[in-house]
Amino acid sequence: MTKDDLAKDKERYIALAMELIERRGAAIDRGTLASEAGVARSRIEAIFPEESDLIDGIVGQWYAPDIRIMEEVVASDLPIRRKFYEFYARRFERDKQRYTDNLELYALYLELGEAHFDRVRGYIDLADHYLTELIAQAQDEGFFGGLEIDRALTLINQMVACYTSPQMMMIIGDRLKPEKLAKILDTLFAGLSAEDGGAMAVTPIKAVT
Amino acid sequence: MTKDDLAKDKERYIALAMELIERRGAAIDRGTLASEAGVARSRIEAIFPEESDLIDGIVGQWYAPDIRIMEEVVASDLPIRRKFYEFYARRFERDKQRYTDNLELYALYLELGEAHFDRVRGYIDLADHYLTELIAQAQDEGFFGGLEIDRALTLINQMVACYTSPQMMMIIGDRLKPEKLAKILDTLFAGLSAEDGGAMAVTPIKAVT
Repeated sequence: MTKDDLAKDKERYIALAMELIERRGAAIDRGTLASEAGVARSRIEAIFPEESDLIDGIVGQWYAPDIRIMEEVVASDLPIRRKFYEFYARRFERDKQRYTDNLELYALYLELGEAHFDRVRGYIDLADHYLTELIAQAQDEGFFGGLEIDRALTLINQMVACYTSPQMMMIIGDRLKPEKLAKILDTLFAGLSAEDGGAMAVTPIKAVT
Repeated sequence: MTKDDLAKDKERYIALAMELIERRGAAIDRGTLASEAGVARSRIEAIFPEESDLIDGIVGQWYAPDIRIMEEVVASDLPIRRKFYEFYARRFERDKQRYTDNLELYALYLELGEAHFDRVRGYIDLADHYLTELIAQAQDEGFFGGLEIDRALTLINQMVACYTSPQMMMIIGDRLKPEKLAKILDTLFAGLSAEDGGAMAVTPIKAVT
């Protein structure tokens, strides 16, 4: 078997695994995949040496469109504000579509992701990596003044979390709208900086003793 | 039994129910409450005519400190920006404490809340009601210019969701910090308005046909 054949087989079995997950409404392991595919278990184990390799394949397939979107947006020549919007909106629209198409399946994948969070972590880090590039560009153009990049990153992640978190999609999916996302991003561009606006008291309020 | 006695009994049995939930690590019903309290089931049913009345009592107890916090903050004479901060920060700190004290118990209450969301809804509406008052005051002072109150409400709710959502607490609790919340609120005060900053394209980008 050539390396190419192996890669094609892997892709085919991941697609089958995801079909089975959808049909059965439950996670599957290598044994089930082998019996449903009608092949020997050793065949599947040659492709996925560990259960975690199958999980990795499924998680990779799930996130592949997100990575494509992020790469395209970062490489585009859109104005920075529009880049931020497309960076979030395109992934959100795609996720919303999956959520709308099949809520149970979406909830199941969310559950799988939570159960194998160590396998998902890398994709979150990758999104942070791309966002860091966008923040650096925005700062070059004078936005988010005075903030360390990591600081801007965590604040932006938190302010936009409703549009990236599948958990929030499950809870308030019907209230999430691209035009609200745009408004949130416009707010960030207009208002996020290192300047202390005074929301937090300089000294904590003390009780009289 | 006077009305006062009944109210006291109710309070006592709700407290006992919550003790039992903590000890057993599971939700309880009126039957279990009666047998654990060593009283006749009819006694419990006189106080909680339906299972949902017991749930309501527990949910009410869970949210009582939040309501107190919101009432105090709205009635305070703090500057509006500080009010916003205290409105969120005090509830967040309290919730963080519960999360830190006993993660399993916190997760269990979150699950109970999700299973009985119709019983929780009223408290979310109440938080919206108080936030509406704060937004109106902020707009009187010139902030959030040109936005309808309901529009400002939904945008602010989404931007601050990490600090109000127990689901987000479960996922990124260790990344949530009062000083980040302050920064997010400062960003809102500096940047949230009806003005279109241009994150969303005026006309969608069309493919060449």
